[in-house]
Amino acid sequence: MTHPEAKHGRLPYLEPPPYSPIEWALAQVHGNAVINLASGSPDPRVAPIEEISRTSREILRELEATALMYPSPGGVEPLKRSIRRWCEYLQLGRGRVTVTSGAQHAIKLISELLLRGRKFAHEDPTFVEGMFPLLGAASANIPIPVDSMGMDTVRLESALRSGSRPLLVYSVPTCNNPTGVTMTLERRKHLLELADTYDFTILEDDPYRAVALSPGISLYKLRPDRVIYVGSMSKVISPGLRIGFVYSKDEELEGKLSRLAQTDFSTSTLNQYIVSRLIDSGFVQGRVNMLRTHYRRKLLAMRDSLEGNGLTREASPEDGFFTLVSFSKPSLEVFKASLRRGVVFVPAEKFYYSNTKRASRLARLSAGYPKEEDIEPAVKVIADSARL
Amino acid sequence: MTHPEAKHGRLPYLEPPPYSPIEWALAQVHGNAVINLASGSPDPRVAPIEEISRTSREILRELEATALMYPSPGGVEPLKRSIRRWCEYLQLGRGRVTVTSGAQHAIKLISELLLRGRKFAHEDPTFVEGMFPLLGAASANIPIPVDSMGMDTVRLESALRSGSRPLLVYSVPTCNNPTGVTMTLERRKHLLELADTYDFTILEDDPYRAVALSPGISLYKLRPDRVIYVGSMSKVISPGLRIGFVYSKDEELEGKLSRLAQTDFSTSTLNQYIVSRLIDSGFVQGRVNMLRTHYRRKLLAMRDSLEGNGLTREASPEDGFFTLVSFSKPSLEVFKASLRRGVVFVPAEKFYYSNTKRASRLARLSAGYPKEEDIEPAVKVIADSARL
Repeated sequence: MTHPEAKHGRLPYLEPPPYSPIEWALAQVHGNAVINLASGSPDPRVAPIEEISRTSREILRELEATALMYPSPGGVEPLKRSIRRWCEYLQLGRGRVTVTSGAQHAIKLISELLLRGRKFAHEDPTFVEGMFPLLGAASANIPIPVDSMGMDTVRLESALRSGSRPLLVYSVPTCNNPTGVTMTLERRKHLLELADTYDFTILEDDPYRAVALSPGISLYKLRPDRVIYVGSMSKVISPGLRIGFVYSKDEELEGKLSRLAQTDFSTSTLNQYIVSRLIDSGFVQGRVNMLRTHYRRKLLAMRDSLEGNGLTREASPEDGFFTLVSFSKPSLEVFKASLRRGVVFVPAEKFYYSNTKRASRLARLSAGYPKEEDIEPAVKVIADSARL
Repeated sequence: MTHPEAKHGRLPYLEPPPYSPIEWALAQVHGNAVINLASGSPDPRVAPIEEISRTSREILRELEATALMYPSPGGVEPLKRSIRRWCEYLQLGRGRVTVTSGAQHAIKLISELLLRGRKFAHEDPTFVEGMFPLLGAASANIPIPVDSMGMDTVRLESALRSGSRPLLVYSVPTCNNPTGVTMTLERRKHLLELADTYDFTILEDDPYRAVALSPGISLYKLRPDRVIYVGSMSKVISPGLRIGFVYSKDEELEGKLSRLAQTDFSTSTLNQYIVSRLIDSGFVQGRVNMLRTHYRRKLLAMRDSLEGNGLTREASPEDGFFTLVSFSKPSLEVFKASLRRGVVFVPAEKFYYSNTKRASRLARLSAGYPKEEDIEPAVKVIADSARL
């Protein structure tokens, strides 16, 4: 007796999102040695390997099995306190902390609480991996173009005036992924005015603040009552620990996120204590200036290489990892030719929701992961491939 | 202009599950010193603290920043290989591995792929934390009673005959949570026959196999084509690392789970390498016999204490952590009186979907977490409280 929902003897799986363009690009490498301008990972050369190793040992010696038990939903108290301290260091003002297994997990939990069947707006292009949970949950999304000043809030206003009523607006306002652009203060204020007028909440995804020299004032700091802030320790400590957080004024959100976290229970207890100690000791704060100049230098090295090799940037970011570049031919062709010569980046088409014909000639290049001295030769390979 | 879905100026959050009865019970303690028969955690006294510390150091020294980058969705290849080895050690036969951030996360991902709006059956009582993801996703669940032989498959058959058509049947067949019962071989075979006749898949949640002296042959081993197996390293290494896995013959499931894992991206890279090394070195396999006799001894100590203090067990489990006990008055009253005397356990009513009047007099006692020598005095406190 076949199950009524079985399909030709197969289980009737719902379709998960396709692999992200980043995962797609990295999968093409097949383990070959390449210069990697595709990954959004921080620079492995500044990973605090020894400090994590030492701190892990200290925590296990001091807390013993306490650091190895099940995590409490929403985070262990010491880490919640440390993250409040960290957010005050980042000048975000006060808020309530819910600990998550990275920022992506935070966005997934928020979308489960708020977005089932509801509308949301977002930058176009947008960080697709960040967007997957929102897309899976919402019935309709409202893409808003990005220019050199960040999300085009005038276009958002037009959409709102013509009747679109998003419950959330998802944004990476600082060091936007994939454009690299940091939203101007004027735009930030306009966005918050619109939030008041049209009664929506902004989901501020802000992983690059601690590695940017000029991050701009955070939307949360400007209007904590209109913003749910998502932070990450991935760029400033390490993505491999999977520790992120939600920061908000909303006591109800904190309580509901904690209860929802029981449904996956995914945040490593040991890693929570490690991150807590690295904040409390001042270690993380102590490396912020180094990271900010490190990544600024690498991004400027990429800018100079792009200019020197005659490649066109879509904007002129000064912070973060990413630059969006346009070619005179499809970026997929440039990708294939570059890959044959050992260089990988991300064709940008899949970051776009509209205008994808133009987008098919764009590429996201990251200066975050590669060695600084590899950037110039890699850009030269890409420029050569674009001229073939 | 108020958002049409806003409720009195509050965000229209969907309601997450309430705190589980275990979290509820532990929250009553407020940091006071207690003997804890409530937690489902493994015994902290057998946590491999030094081995985790040493292995973490080794991994970071050898792999350096590779162990700290973003995880690949679905698990790093070395851990996938190690878990296949581990499953063969557990005599599960061959399968495909998807790594998850613990078993609970695995169940959540599976429910997202398979259960939106679809029916599933489960033991009644059931492990509510395990069930949360299923409940959130499905429109209807079919509770099946449990007796001393495990899930009552005759009752399941009646439900199926009368037209219930679950797509999945969720079961903890070995050392069931909360009853402690291990399903007999006859019942296992009957369940698998029903799966053939009525075309459903069994979701086998099996965290206790490696710590049970007589776990029974796994449903997956008996019929890999009818079973999705969920495993966990929590009881045999540590829950604090959050490493679990899905084991299945189904290549489509492996691919779709990996893609779905992008939506939360929550599994620590470092912890994956630590667990991989602890399996590859034979360390985990080498402690299985010790753990099996350790937990058997503690469970038998609890049995003897219960008998000696005149408390009634609902079944006679020989493995795992849990025993279900019945009182002649509401377990919540016994809980409160015991808590005042420094002993905590879990009132069992919330594990039940039906017959909750009888369930209100039941309690789940765990022998897993407390010290062996604390079990007898704790049971005496509970017995005294039950007679008050």
